[in-house]
Amino acid sequence: MKAPRYTDLVTRLPAIVPFVGPETQERARGAKFAARLGANESVFAASPKAIAAMQAAAPDIWMYADPENYDLKQALAAHHGVGVENIVVGAGIDGLLGGLCRMLLGDGARVVTSHGAYPTFNFHVAGYAGQLHTVPYLHDAEDPKGVLDMAEKVDASLIYFANPDNPMGSFHTADVMQNMIDNVPAGAVLCLDEAYVEFAPKGTAPLLDIENPNIIRMRTFSKAYGMAGARVGYAIGAAGLIAAFDKVRNHYEMNRAAIAGTLAALEDQGYLEQIVQKVTAARGRIGDIARENGLSPLPSVTNFVTIDCGRDGDYAKALVGEMLARGVFIRMPFVAPQNRCIRVSAGRSQDLDLFAAALPAALEAIK
Amino acid sequence: MKAPRYTDLVTRLPAIVPFVGPETQERARGAKFAARLGANESVFAASPKAIAAMQAAAPDIWMYADPENYDLKQALAAHHGVGVENIVVGAGIDGLLGGLCRMLLGDGARVVTSHGAYPTFNFHVAGYAGQLHTVPYLHDAEDPKGVLDMAEKVDASLIYFANPDNPMGSFHTADVMQNMIDNVPAGAVLCLDEAYVEFAPKGTAPLLDIENPNIIRMRTFSKAYGMAGARVGYAIGAAGLIAAFDKVRNHYEMNRAAIAGTLAALEDQGYLEQIVQKVTAARGRIGDIARENGLSPLPSVTNFVTIDCGRDGDYAKALVGEMLARGVFIRMPFVAPQNRCIRVSAGRSQDLDLFAAALPAALEAIK
Repeated sequence: MKAPRYTDLVTRLPAIVPFVGPETQERARGAKFAARLGANESVFAASPKAIAAMQAAAPDIWMYADPENYDLKQALAAHHGVGVENIVVGAGIDGLLGGLCRMLLGDGARVVTSHGAYPTFNFHVAGYAGQLHTVPYLHDAEDPKGVLDMAEKVDASLIYFANPDNPMGSFHTADVMQNMIDNVPAGAVLCLDEAYVEFAPKGTAPLLDIENPNIIRMRTFSKAYGMAGARVGYAIGAAGLIAAFDKVRNHYEMNRAAIAGTLAALEDQGYLEQIVQKVTAARGRIGDIARENGLSPLPSVTNFVTIDCGRDGDYAKALVGEMLARGVFIRMPFVAPQNRCIRVSAGRSQDLDLFAAALPAALEAIK
Repeated sequence: MKAPRYTDLVTRLPAIVPFVGPETQERARGAKFAARLGANESVFAASPKAIAAMQAAAPDIWMYADPENYDLKQALAAHHGVGVENIVVGAGIDGLLGGLCRMLLGDGARVVTSHGAYPTFNFHVAGYAGQLHTVPYLHDAEDPKGVLDMAEKVDASLIYFANPDNPMGSFHTADVMQNMIDNVPAGAVLCLDEAYVEFAPKGTAPLLDIENPNIIRMRTFSKAYGMAGARVGYAIGAAGLIAAFDKVRNHYEMNRAAIAGTLAALEDQGYLEQIVQKVTAARGRIGDIARENGLSPLPSVTNFVTIDCGRDGDYAKALVGEMLARGVFIRMPFVAPQNRCIRVSAGRSQDLDLFAAALPAALEAIK
């Protein structure tokens, strides 16, 4: 007997969960959260048609899903006005980010992201031996020029940029993003994570350009469509880049009922619009609650509001802890100076009532 | 604009789907199959309790599943008499095989499998730059001694062995497998794929030994539990090996409703026993149909029967084509001499009626 021979890279990697789930925290505290406002899930739930489609598909779960995900790709292609060959479906944006990193990152390939942006992307970069370079946020938003300058400087193979941004809720206009796309350094791929784009003002997303091999757009059914637990994300890009995913992906990765659900959800655009309206209203109320408690909500075009607590990361962390102890699951940005904030997902009236009730006591407890 | 810089490995890899799905074939022929007996799915369907659990969980799909899959791991740990730390859950055995290859295979690491065994394993080996060495089948079964000898000879980091075997349906007893486990060369990990073990005679699986870091056992809800479309597999192994999966896996990979379904399926062991009985009866009937048509069914302890057509691979391939043209989806082994056979999954009476009706005409067509 002798230990397995892990790769050098895997030996060096930490065994972590990039985002600790609320269930882990619930097990630790021995009680469920009363309000689940920490993971930017859609408390408003998926379209009833999507739920019904999943329920109708449940008896068919004995069959594998189509490994080509053809029907969903065709529906998405029609929805976005691109070809089936321009779409790859995967287990959430998380899964697709892993595939993209695997395709582009060899030992020491350079990658640029914002400092404090998506930890799961960084997890995949480390997992495929990429060398991560970060650029600070500028005025609580990602900095397109700073990111591009860094990409040029380090000769990056991959750039990650989220628009709208998580965890800050800020966004750039389509013009700014188009300018960024036009200036991606030669040989780099810009991964534009648009998980929250359905919540943003119309026209936030620049036009899709499926001829450009240096940009890939990532979308998801986890946020506005309210299907985080289904694990269905997709990417839109040039046919060559999209085809390369077939070299590395787990072709039998997708849940059959989830595919049926997303097909129904995509058709129910009226429901999506209602959700966007409800989220907009919820953002307003979260802002009001924050201000009533002397905190400063940041502008947001997403399904969450990031709230400046006016002090340092330790203070915000203590506040998150007090909220969790009161049964309200929220999260916060990971790095300074954004970690002066807490992040609260949009919720129904009853969820925000619980948030409003817990916040004054939580603030009092850390005064 | 300049092409993305793929890794050298990815540049070399073919963009393939290791198993073409029946849906692709249905699209090509412009009609659905009348009998789906090619993918070793369970036409008998999942437990009604599992289906009900997935339907009940559908409205909750707005929530991510627990990234630690704690409840399912706990239930599996209790079921198998091991610890939670000895189990990792993933998107089918396919997904777990990918993770295992990623952990153990660097450039040129040697891997041993049987010639004509699981193509998806080979896909992952290629995808992580492993060097594949194959050992022929012996009497239509995998050859434990041959595989171990090759592993010793090439100083393998990873060995793949399925018991019972797919695509041949053969198996080795627990004693033979225990002997194989005891003789795994130092520094190698034996991946024992037991996807079909629930169908095999009691005692086919050697005892679990969670102290041994050189063996990992893979199980699935796709076969006997009838939940292929759910994408839930798991591996059982030493705590250190299992923990290493956290370094590389997509933590938010699992479908929330699928987890609820597998929990219910695991509890419904009575249903599982009924399925095993139905599959046993179906195997008998497939054998009878084969013999009535002058073909020779091989012994099987799985949910399929591999049928020796008595001629070469071209003949069996032509027969598969004729069956597909008659609306009966079946498959066949990929390499000689096993490709003299066709492979037919267990089905309900009505499925096997279609098989029985199509076979004589298909044979006549290629006479």
